[in-house]
Amino acid sequence: MAFTFEQARACVLLETGARRAIPATETVALLDASGRILAENVSADRDYPPFPRSARDGFAVRAADLPGTLRLIGEVRAGEVYSGSVGPGETVEIMTGAPMPAGTDAVVMVEHVVRDGNCIQMQHTLASGDNFNAQGLAAQAGVTILFPGQRLGYADIAMLASVGRDSVQVYRKPRVAVVPTGDEIVEGGQQPATYQIRNSNAWSMAVQVTRAGGEPVVLPVARDNYASTVARIEEGLQCDMLLLSGGVSAGKYDIVEKVLADLGAEFFFTRVLIQPGQPLVFGVVKNDHKQTLFFGLPGNPGSTMVTFEVFARAAVELLSGANEAPLHMLQTRLWKDLRQKTGLTRFIPSRLSDDGATVEQVGWHGSGDVSGMTRANAFIVTEPNREQWSAGEMVRVLMK
Amino acid sequence: MAFTFEQARACVLLETGARRAIPATETVALLDASGRILAENVSADRDYPPFPRSARDGFAVRAADLPGTLRLIGEVRAGEVYSGSVGPGETVEIMTGAPMPAGTDAVVMVEHVVRDGNCIQMQHTLASGDNFNAQGLAAQAGVTILFPGQRLGYADIAMLASVGRDSVQVYRKPRVAVVPTGDEIVEGGQQPATYQIRNSNAWSMAVQVTRAGGEPVVLPVARDNYASTVARIEEGLQCDMLLLSGGVSAGKYDIVEKVLADLGAEFFFTRVLIQPGQPLVFGVVKNDHKQTLFFGLPGNPGSTMVTFEVFARAAVELLSGANEAPLHMLQTRLWKDLRQKTGLTRFIPSRLSDDGATVEQVGWHGSGDVSGMTRANAFIVTEPNREQWSAGEMVRVLMK
Repeated sequence: MAFTFEQARACVLLETGARRAIPATETVALLDASGRILAENVSADRDYPPFPRSARDGFAVRAADLPGTLRLIGEVRAGEVYSGSVGPGETVEIMTGAPMPAGTDAVVMVEHVVRDGNCIQMQHTLASGDNFNAQGLAAQAGVTILFPGQRLGYADIAMLASVGRDSVQVYRKPRVAVVPTGDEIVEGGQQPATYQIRNSNAWSMAVQVTRAGGEPVVLPVARDNYASTVARIEEGLQCDMLLLSGGVSAGKYDIVEKVLADLGAEFFFTRVLIQPGQPLVFGVVKNDHKQTLFFGLPGNPGSTMVTFEVFARAAVELLSGANEAPLHMLQTRLWKDLRQKTGLTRFIPSRLSDDGATVEQVGWHGSGDVSGMTRANAFIVTEPNREQWSAGEMVRVLMK
Repeated sequence: MAFTFEQARACVLLETGARRAIPATETVALLDASGRILAENVSADRDYPPFPRSARDGFAVRAADLPGTLRLIGEVRAGEVYSGSVGPGETVEIMTGAPMPAGTDAVVMVEHVVRDGNCIQMQHTLASGDNFNAQGLAAQAGVTILFPGQRLGYADIAMLASVGRDSVQVYRKPRVAVVPTGDEIVEGGQQPATYQIRNSNAWSMAVQVTRAGGEPVVLPVARDNYASTVARIEEGLQCDMLLLSGGVSAGKYDIVEKVLADLGAEFFFTRVLIQPGQPLVFGVVKNDHKQTLFFGLPGNPGSTMVTFEVFARAAVELLSGANEAPLHMLQTRLWKDLRQKTGLTRFIPSRLSDDGATVEQVGWHGSGDVSGMTRANAFIVTEPNREQWSAGEMVRVLMK
């Protein structure tokens, strides 16, 4: 069951999409909704713009009067309404954001007139509709403007405020169990012996789950024995999703897969042709009342981080109720030649220039090297069938 | 003082960099440090890896013995240490993450041996050092591995946990005053009259400030009169930075610039050749004990959002203590032909495909259209001297 990167991505999206339930909802204050997933339809309470609205500082006119010299009969500012009506040969000074006076159908920009007292001379023509926004242009009253499943960003929060909302219904965050495995790992606060290391994967996974919109539930380290592993996995399966790191490679003490199989797991894949991260398990455990998806991520820290970003993050996002789980890989120019062995899609820790115009590999000693990973702000993503790239060529990049 | 986009960016980075003080610090728990700016040097408490560490499941050998058949004398797992020493012709089974036994200098992968009881046959050669990570390869004890000014992401949090930290010193967030202006704006909770609109810019700015690492301080709307504007601006200048929206175009009631000038402001620029967002003010007000940078962003919601992202965000990031304020514009393929008037650098609300391979404009009715902005997840960024692009061409993209 070795999948290519693309097959594995498609599998995660498909299997998660097919199994997810609509999450429960909760109501949060507007500012707290940033980054959350909308759980309701939001419709326009009135037309947007709510009135024909000048897009310029200038003079409201009847377009048919132009070119010509018009008589200034008044002024209207944003937040006011011009009470009269504008007849042929007349104009009203208008500010950006102000409602168009009755009778007018265009705005001449203030820069384009010659003014002499109340005589406003306009030398150019305008079409009806120029320089103002028609009522309801952006959205008409009653239409749905925001849909369930949208991740709320700054524009969405502004839209919600525009329609008069100060709170909003969002989906509850899925609880994601985080279980590192390995006899060599000591928990926080303990001093490791020479041959031991501190738990770091639980931390990176917890941060990544949070960033993806989940609520991490960090469990103690599962030890490399059956009893400890089964206990942690059973505990983790109570959550909405289970993330394990380590214990999934070919090693004879890597018992995560065996325990999962004994618990009735269905495996969608157990290996993906990527680097870092080849041994990578994705599946589901079903019991009476629920199905819980799990990922067994490889235990080397760099592999844990990368495989979360490119696979598990999508599952957390979909379980959060998001209607999409994009993995945006744009392109930029290689700063230095690059050479790789073929056969795997590689995610190479790299650094984008400040403007993003170029990308360069950082010094990195493989998937155990967390320090190298901290110097990256992106990954170069290589195609598996290609061996070398020259400086100046375009390559795909995934933001870290 | 009309700047190009590039001139304005450079000006913001330069003037903010020259004026910022080192922020005060605070200590936060490790998980709360995600996204914060590190305020201390963090050094490796020991070598990383702390011991010569097998990168594979397999057999620890003396490389000089290969190819050949070796005698299996023991086993070492991650979290253990092999007590004996390995002599010529001998090998020890080893798991990924376990320390290399004394006397060995390479690891043969388990897939590459033929095993017959305690006789392990290895047909290929290996170089000394193959398949294990030398002690201190990634970082040697005592070297600085994380520096003040770094924004802490998942790899940094994992690194901090690796060296035994459960809390970390970060910079305090800068307080950024948010002041919308305009007589047409009603505050949250109030029903707008036909010719009025609700306050939405304060909300998008607050979300954007938070995302950039600042703490928004939202003030009431400044009205289009001198007294109200001066009161709000003076209040806002008490913060570390001041953000205004509206009141900065050529309109005769746009008094933000006049008030700022009367308060002794120095203006670095008052117009930028971009769309949306041409009227855009950046400067500093100095008084006895501090210098406060301010932005007067244009008041159309789309302009407020874009000008924050491309200019004000950098200032908030630098004031947060970050050592960089990148604006990553990578490239991807246009889905549809694109045509623009020349003269301005345009940020066009757009939508990236899920994999980021293509980008397409969303329907958008100009900078007053918040609804269109909610459908975008990115901006196409056009060069000012070019008029048209064909489908399939590469264009620059800024993530929303």
